[in-house]
Amino acid sequence: MQKLSYDQLVAVRLTPDQAPTASKHPIVAVLHDIRSLYNVGSIFRSADAFGIERLVLCGYTPQPPRTEIAKTALGADLVVSYSVCESVYEAVRDLRDAGYHVFAAEVAHGSMLPQNLGPHHFPLAMIFGNELTGVPDDLLALCEGALEIPMFGTKHSLNVAVAAGVLLSTAVHRYRETSP
Amino acid sequence: MQKLSYDQLVAVRLTPDQAPTASKHPIVAVLHDIRSLYNVGSIFRSADAFGIERLVLCGYTPQPPRTEIAKTALGADLVVSYSVCESVYEAVRDLRDAGYHVFAAEVAHGSMLPQNLGPHHFPLAMIFGNELTGVPDDLLALCEGALEIPMFGTKHSLNVAVAAGVLLSTAVHRYRETSP
Repeated sequence: MQKLSYDQLVAVRLTPDQAPTASKHPIVAVLHDIRSLYNVGSIFRSADAFGIERLVLCGYTPQPPRTEIAKTALGADLVVSYSVCESVYEAVRDLRDAGYHVFAAEVAHGSMLPQNLGPHHFPLAMIFGNELTGVPDDLLALCEGALEIPMFGTKHSLNVAVAAGVLLSTAVHRYRETSP
Repeated sequence: MQKLSYDQLVAVRLTPDQAPTASKHPIVAVLHDIRSLYNVGSIFRSADAFGIERLVLCGYTPQPPRTEIAKTALGADLVVSYSVCESVYEAVRDLRDAGYHVFAAEVAHGSMLPQNLGPHHFPLAMIFGNELTGVPDDLLALCEGALEIPMFGTKHSLNVAVAAGVLLSTAVHRYRETSP
């Protein structure tokens, strides 16, 4: 068993020139009131890796260009599409009007396992909330449902960039596995 | 749809007293030459969340107690079992001798999708390597295989704490789904 060489890795990845026009998975991530610049940068890096359509930065979520975002995005902040919409409520309304199924990343009654996503949930928008307070109740009320990552320990939540990585990668897997 | 209240959350999580003796998933994560204290702390937090057996800290991977680890572990550094083994080669030999199926988190020829893990892959040990250089070739040669997270963008890798979150959560899901 051998790792891919640097040249082989480059050959299987997109170039920064190809990225903007490359075909994407029909998934949008909405970042609402994310406090940490490093978390935002890390989510940019994951958004590039998983080939999602775009990020929507809402509330006080910081936006590029910022040195700290660039530090964890490692250049993904230059290639991932994003839009800025101060009101997350307006962003969710726009996504719903455009036909997106909007889900909150939350621990909620009646939440769904990400592994149960099916073709009828795409195009999909996922909302990631503040590191401490999550997705507000009145925003959750506007969502079609909540996606919950099963947890088995003492802590109440995952780091938001880790949660985004888990949910985006699972959604991409489910989309590729179930959509025609 | 309603979020779980604080009291409801506490009721579905373990207390720090319960954590050490609670039943765990037969999964070990080996951290080899991880540079960032924040990444190590974040992996402690995910190890708690996903209820894995323990972490093995190898090479120059920092170990608790450290303020920076505690900052991202949020207390998980106090409840997750870990051992320290300077030689990762010795750690892998010990795990293999104990019956673990050892896989590297790597982009490699003949790698496996984490979603294809089955009951015959448990107990499972996963090696996460340095942020820049990954798992060394001679260590990969000692592994049963590599687990690779599909990527579709420009960057060559994911943040190691995000990759650990994705692989640990998927392994736990596959274990619970497929093991008797």
